[in-house]
Amino acid sequence: MKNFLSIEDVTDLKGLVNEALAFKHAPFSQPDLGNNKTLGLIFMNPSLRTRLSTQQAAYQLGMQVIVMNMNQDSWQLEFQDGTVMDGGTAEHVKEAAAVISQYCDVIGIRTFAGLQDVTADYQETVLNKFVAHAQVPVISLESATLHPLQSLADMVTIQEHQKSHKPKVVLTWAPHPRALPQAVANSFLQWAKQWDCELVLTHPPGYELAPEFTNGVEVIHQQDLALQDADFVYTKNWSSYQSYGQVLTKDPSWMITSEKMSLTNQGKFMHCLPLRRNVVASDEVVDQSLVVKQAHNRLFAAQAVLAQILNNE
Amino acid sequence: MKNFLSIEDVTDLKGLVNEALAFKHAPFSQPDLGNNKTLGLIFMNPSLRTRLSTQQAAYQLGMQVIVMNMNQDSWQLEFQDGTVMDGGTAEHVKEAAAVISQYCDVIGIRTFAGLQDVTADYQETVLNKFVAHAQVPVISLESATLHPLQSLADMVTIQEHQKSHKPKVVLTWAPHPRALPQAVANSFLQWAKQWDCELVLTHPPGYELAPEFTNGVEVIHQQDLALQDADFVYTKNWSSYQSYGQVLTKDPSWMITSEKMSLTNQGKFMHCLPLRRNVVASDEVVDQSLVVKQAHNRLFAAQAVLAQILNNE
Amino acid sequence: MKNFLSIEDVTDLKGLVNEALAFKHAPFSQPDLGNNKTLGLIFMNPSLRTRLSTQQAAYQLGMQVIVMNMNQDSWQLEFQDGTVMDGGTAEHVKEAAAVISQYCDVIGIRTFAGLQDVTADYQETVLNKFVAHAQVPVISLESATLHPLQSLADMVTIQEHQKSHKPKVVLTWAPHPRALPQAVANSFLQWAKQWDCELVLTHPPGYELAPEFTNGVEVIHQQDLALQDADFVYTKNWSSYQSYGQVLTKDPSWMITSEKMSLTNQGKFMHCLPLRRNVVASDEVVDQSLVVKQAHNRLFAAQAVLAQILNNE
Repeated sequence: MKNFLSIEDVTDLKGLVNEALAFKHAPFSQPDLGNNKTLGLIFMNPSLRTRLSTQQAAYQLGMQVIVMNMNQDSWQLEFQDGTVMDGGTAEHVKEAAAVISQYCDVIGIRTFAGLQDVTADYQETVLNKFVAHAQVPVISLESATLHPLQSLADMVTIQEHQKSHKPKVVLTWAPHPRALPQAVANSFLQWAKQWDCELVLTHPPGYELAPEFTNGVEVIHQQDLALQDADFVYTKNWSSYQSYGQVLTKDPSWMITSEKMSLTNQGKFMHCLPLRRNVVASDEVVDQSLVVKQAHNRLFAAQAVLAQILNNE
Repeated sequence: MKNFLSIEDVTDLKGLVNEALAFKHAPFSQPDLGNNKTLGLIFMNPSLRTRLSTQQAAYQLGMQVIVMNMNQDSWQLEFQDGTVMDGGTAEHVKEAAAVISQYCDVIGIRTFAGLQDVTADYQETVLNKFVAHAQVPVISLESATLHPLQSLADMVTIQEHQKSHKPKVVLTWAPHPRALPQAVANSFLQWAKQWDCELVLTHPPGYELAPEFTNGVEVIHQQDLALQDADFVYTKNWSSYQSYGQVLTKDPSWMITSEKMSLTNQGKFMHCLPLRRNVVASDEVVDQSLVVKQAHNRLFAAQAVLAQILNNE
Repeated sequence: MKNFLSIEDVTDLKGLVNEALAFKHAPFSQPDLGNNKTLGLIFMNPSLRTRLSTQQAAYQLGMQVIVMNMNQDSWQLEFQDGTVMDGGTAEHVKEAAAVISQYCDVIGIRTFAGLQDVTADYQETVLNKFVAHAQVPVISLESATLHPLQSLADMVTIQEHQKSHKPKVVLTWAPHPRALPQAVANSFLQWAKQWDCELVLTHPPGYELAPEFTNGVEVIHQQDLALQDADFVYTKNWSSYQSYGQVLTKDPSWMITSEKMSLTNQGKFMHCLPLRRNVVASDEVVDQSLVVKQAHNRLFAAQAVLAQILNNE
């Protein structure tokens, strides 16, 4: 693996999931793989799970870690070419990415969706510019439109908990007070489409995701109907893609409750966290969910990706 | 030791103090105790000594360390149960604590006193919720009402510098421009009460500490009288407990000066730092004090606590 | 080497440059030199290259690293003696420096020029107070008036790229929207004066640097004339020293362009970064420059300095 920016960098999904599970059973099975190697983690947006799990994953492989909160520890980067840089940006990504990659052997970077300019976000301008100028492998720690480490951890979790060879997996929109990116939902669809499952998407009108992610996915606008016999209920808010970045509704009837879960096939509730209780899902649902186990698998997902990069597999 | 939240987690105070002193003499005597173990440090409030000394303590035991500035690196946590989380908090402590403890072997956490709601502070809502949902040992790096790592370092320092078997130890209030928690003072009383010493507390009227900490402690309201023949003058500002969180006076006559120290038995001035010079104590007093040595002992206090936790003593 | 605060701490410049180049060829040649040693990095100002390169340099020597963003992670320090500290500063550098140096074996510190009070800046009040109260070696990660790690990396880069025994090195001022310190320029002159080269300085009137740095250096006010036959064009903005901290001009005709570079002896463009493209220099110049290679040498410069300190050479 050269970079890990999306599922397109994965040649063997089942193999990668199994490698993550192998690390779960034996976290220190390759303690010297990362010796004399340093992972640089660049955060352009806040992070809890990603920050901690990726550091620990690196430690379990014997790597060193350097963490950098861009903006906060440093200054704003420029991503456009040809700009006369007499404004708020003090350094161009051309220099920054090249320089950082001279101090690290692998870089993890969290970028973000501005939710203003759909083209800039969906072209992954920030991530792609960084990758273009970096001289070492880059791992996405969530980008404007995708969150592949999360999706890998999700597939690991489904693998662990699925009771049939072809589970029914429902991705449902849920309400949220703020406008959030589509990254987790987009990415989940990308990965679940390659998983042997019956994939159903449900959301209110106006919350259609970008066609490149929903092509071939069954969409059912009635949430109750979509949830019928589901084995996994993957829940996530996102802001509108078409009315880009807008919150069109906060309709609480889309919140996942125990009543709704009772429609499923003793389905498991999943969410990437952070989760606003009693807005996205009720306390009862969250308390009986897989969310903490999913987050645990973030550690082994990151470790498997790092190992493949270090092994240049 | 399972957790280290207060002196109640300590079964053998003298033994713990001696273990800290043993590490002071041989900091790398247990270099592999923490191998393949990670300490996660969560800061909800600023920190200098605690941040640095606890990291170094972990390194001296062969641990890895992950530092997280909650709020700054991440987002606000919710600590109340049953809340409809449509406001400023993005993640519940139930998830956050459970998740973090899946990536670390031991967690250190600094919480804080809001100084608004005495009940919430004195119930240690934030710390206790975190502990309840964490799945690994938790070390308090100062909580709303206690600072046990500081108190342990204080006892180590007294042990090193006491010239008699039962020294006179005075805890005196001192002025300060801002409202500060009672944590250091409360905690010092808890620990000093279990030390073989003559313990005296002095403060202006209205600055009485919570009875659970002062029970059995001699209180003398005249500072000069209290300081007579003292071997140690532990100085600290705190805001009012009864008029909760209020600054009732900044009376500069309570500042510790050389004149006041001359009343003592060549007493040693102690303070947990940070210390506002010429407000809490005069330059001359601070320059001849134990404060830097106390801070040094923070390192070995943390190391002894970590070692006991890792050894599951 | 005891401290590394300026070139005055260097006894053998060529030897230090060669040690840095030796680490460039064999980064892990002394993997145990720093075992059981911790480098504490204190940032009072933002940093990217210094932050990352110095951490990695320490790792390559087997050291541990603790990073502290002063102000952000902690609180404001007081640097004046005798102050009644009832204002914004919560801890005196006397305590802070002494305490920090009890937890670390070497301290790196980045201070800054306030650009208000020339005397305070040029006396290096903050750095010198810190050094005076620290009990371990201190490395400047850039101070108010000097940036010696940068200058060492610059000399390493010149050594690698010079085509003659006595290259012509031009230090030229360039425009910038904000007021910047004189540190990089001052420091470069200090180091270049001890390098076997023809050193020329060019800047608009009013941008004279402090005489202690320019003594003996040829100054040519016409940039075009200065650039004639240059082998290296070291470019940097600085604010006025005489009209202290002021921006007297942003004259774009001082920007380095390909046309200007054509006046040189196929000269190499150098800059410490961060660099504002198309303000300080045109895209074309930057793209063909040494700036990324210079930044790479920051790593080995820091490693050589750390090694000399650890070896107490």
